Amino acid sequence: MSDQPRVEIYTKENCPYCDKAKDLFDSKGIEYEEYNVTGDEQLFSEMVDRAEGRKTAPEVFVDDELIGGWDDTSALEETGELDEKLGIADDETDDAVEHRKLIIAGTGIAGLTAAIYAGRGDNEPLVIEGDEPGGQLTLTTDVANYPGFPDGISGPELVNNMKEQARQFGAELKNGIVDSVDDSSRPFRVELTNGDVYTADAIIAASGASARTLGIPGEDELMGYGLSTCATCDGAFFRDEDMLVVGGGDAAMEEATFLTKFADTVYIAHRREEFRAEQYWVDRVHEKVAEGEIEIMKNTELIEIHGSQAEGVDYVTLVENEKGHPTDRLEDPETEEFEFDVGAVFFAIGHTPNTSYLEDTGVEMDDEGYLRTQGGDGGGQTETDVPGIFGAGDVVDYHYQQAVTAAGMGSKAALDVDEYLEDVERADAAGMEAAAADD
Amino acid sequence: MSDQPRVEIYTKENCPYCDKAKDLFDSKGIEYEEYNVTGDEQLFSEMVDRAEGRKTAPEVFVDDELIGGWDDTSALEETGELDEKLGIADDETDDAVEHRKLIIAGTGIAGLTAAIYAGRGDNEPLVIEGDEPGGQLTLTTDVANYPGFPDGISGPELVNNMKEQARQFGAELKNGIVDSVDDSSRPFRVELTNGDVYTADAIIAASGASARTLGIPGEDELMGYGLSTCATCDGAFFRDEDMLVVGGGDAAMEEATFLTKFADTVYIAHRREEFRAEQYWVDRVHEKVAEGEIEIMKNTELIEIHGSQAEGVDYVTLVENEKGHPTDRLEDPETEEFEFDVGAVFFAIGHTPNTSYLEDTGVEMDDEGYLRTQGGDGGGQTETDVPGIFGAGDVVDYHYQQAVTAAGMGSKAALDVDEYLEDVERADAAGMEAAAADD
Repeated sequence: MSDQPRVEIYTKENCPYCDKAKDLFDSKGIEYEEYNVTGDEQLFSEMVDRAEGRKTAPEVFVDDELIGGWDDTSALEETGELDEKLGIADDETDDAVEHRKLIIAGTGIAGLTAAIYAGRGDNEPLVIEGDEPGGQLTLTTDVANYPGFPDGISGPELVNNMKEQARQFGAELKNGIVDSVDDSSRPFRVELTNGDVYTADAIIAASGASARTLGIPGEDELMGYGLSTCATCDGAFFRDEDMLVVGGGDAAMEEATFLTKFADTVYIAHRREEFRAEQYWVDRVHEKVAEGEIEIMKNTELIEIHGSQAEGVDYVTLVENEKGHPTDRLEDPETEEFEFDVGAVFFAIGHTPNTSYLEDTGVEMDDEGYLRTQGGDGGGQTETDVPGIFGAGDVVDYHYQQAVTAAGMGSKAALDVDEYLEDVERADAAGMEAAAADD
Repeated sequence: MSDQPRVEIYTKENCPYCDKAKDLFDSKGIEYEEYNVTGDEQLFSEMVDRAEGRKTAPEVFVDDELIGGWDDTSALEETGELDEKLGIADDETDDAVEHRKLIIAGTGIAGLTAAIYAGRGDNEPLVIEGDEPGGQLTLTTDVANYPGFPDGISGPELVNNMKEQARQFGAELKNGIVDSVDDSSRPFRVELTNGDVYTADAIIAASGASARTLGIPGEDELMGYGLSTCATCDGAFFRDEDMLVVGGGDAAMEEATFLTKFADTVYIAHRREEFRAEQYWVDRVHEKVAEGEIEIMKNTELIEIHGSQAEGVDYVTLVENEKGHPTDRLEDPETEEFEFDVGAVFFAIGHTPNTSYLEDTGVEMDDEGYLRTQGGDGGGQTETDVPGIFGAGDVVDYHYQQAVTAAGMGSKAALDVDEYLEDVERADAAGMEAAAADD
């Protein structure tokens, strides 16, 4: 059809967000041209040029208009504007509110495991993909510790296996982002950011967590122009540069190790003396330190990133104090501020749970937005304090945060939902009997 | 060598306990002759004859002496008598007590996942296989709901994958059964039933649960002679007989469905009106009911099994009362007792946690022997109230009991152990510094 707009996507190899962008257009049945810039300097220059200096993939164009990277594309998708640009917006007033037994928010490991179990339990789950379909594991190239795969498995492959498994048991997966939940009456009313509305008897919040940023000067301007929260996505764009990784947990160690493939030297800035990471990753990092590929800057924090969208990151400002947490000690005479040349910065400083859509409900959260669930040793461990709303995965777990712990919780949530729905059905039946007896 | 005794094992296809028996002799480096009786009536008759009328596989013989089935073989292994019969008993007094950072009791899904994580965390786990190596999942032919395998995977294959993965990260797996743990001093003292003794800084109890029996007349005599707790092991021996499955949970539904392949009719006796099983399995059973292959006996309990070791199960005595739980209402005039002809009986009535080796420790258990762990939403969820002893899988979980929930807990236990050991090391180092300062 001649009236389909021309969609172009610049991609690179091993780029999970590129796959997400392609999946999004695939799911809409929209054809696109893909330009793989890996190893093609001319094509890469063309991309940087057309993308107004941005050096990250993917870069999406619709009828020669720059849409941007995955964040930009999914932001337009959220508001429905992407469909308008593509000429496939649904003009009808959407009066028909579809009812579902169970809506699962999120298609990370927790949401997909819940979908597998709920599908098998005949609860016909509708699974809303969220703004990061497949969740954080799609950003991991090699998952070595998910039990059952002795040779390891890539994050995207594990996620795709689970999606297929969920679909086989009758789960329906749908692009979209949950915007709000209304728990003032039953069934719950669930609104997506694109305006779609559903009602649901039960909800599993499995919407995970998103990469945290520091809120420092230079951050907003340079995000995507040398600053990134995904080493596996963007590391290869800064070949032979010095790179700075900020953080001290597993993710920071893994990203720093990975980046040695591309970087001149990888620097790790960590605000404390000791890393929080598991020993395995600390050991891998120390091997790279011994080989001269990584340098560790302890008790050091990043306070500003300098550069421009045209030229990328130029240098950064760091502070150091051997007592740790130097930004808490800026007045301390021993706190030293210094400038440091790097060509790219990667944040690996943890995550914020994606739970804002539950803010107007009675679901209890802690100060950081993590959901409080019942826990304990019997059934109902994933119940929030709103009956019918359950939580699983990184929206609940601020401590372990493993793929297999998220899977375990997803399974529990689906089993809890099943008991909840059966109880509701039984109560409804008893209520109808009682009402009939009153006549 | 001429002085190795002659070991013979009668086996059949799809028989997990046969595999366990073979694995045991393999692990000892003992050669054996295997006679597969599947489809060979003459060989089957020979086995029944030599095994004094027992119709279950495996049947093990050492120098023509009947050892018996897996239970008998592993009982001899526990006491060390099997090694004596095989002429490989270790005659030396075992003074050398080996020290390990971490001992994991059990090689089911929880124990193996803990081993993968602990191996990766450089805590060099020693994993004691227990009396059912691989745990309950080895009895499941098709695991459809373990996330990551859209085509399903057999229980033994999933377990073997995890064993390989654990070994790759440095876990050591060892045949044996933990007999007792002494927590009166540190390190813990761990004794195996074969007399081996270890000390350990930390222990993960992941020893699972074992099939429950009813304690009714006829049970002890006929176990293995027409009464079984494993349909996949023994179902095929009773082809074209009527079979009785006792229970109302997932396992009962799965076993009844499986047994329709062999049985004339499968009867399910369940003491309540409603099944506890997930909807998926209830649906499968109702399909078989519609096809005339299964009949459901609700509100019915088994009170006696009649038969002989020579002739197998002849008939059973059942009681029925439509109010449910008829054995609680034996005096009720509406409770009806009746005899019923079946050729085989399968128990699928749940499990008892294998935690007796912790009885003399301070670890808190509930009335049924399930371990009480800390739970909650942060770290340390798998801690018992003895610091250094952790619990994971079916020793803790009396409710969900899924492979993936056990895996989740195993991962948490290993991460909790890692923090515990680091804290201990730090405290030791501080203690030594303090002691040095005192000098």
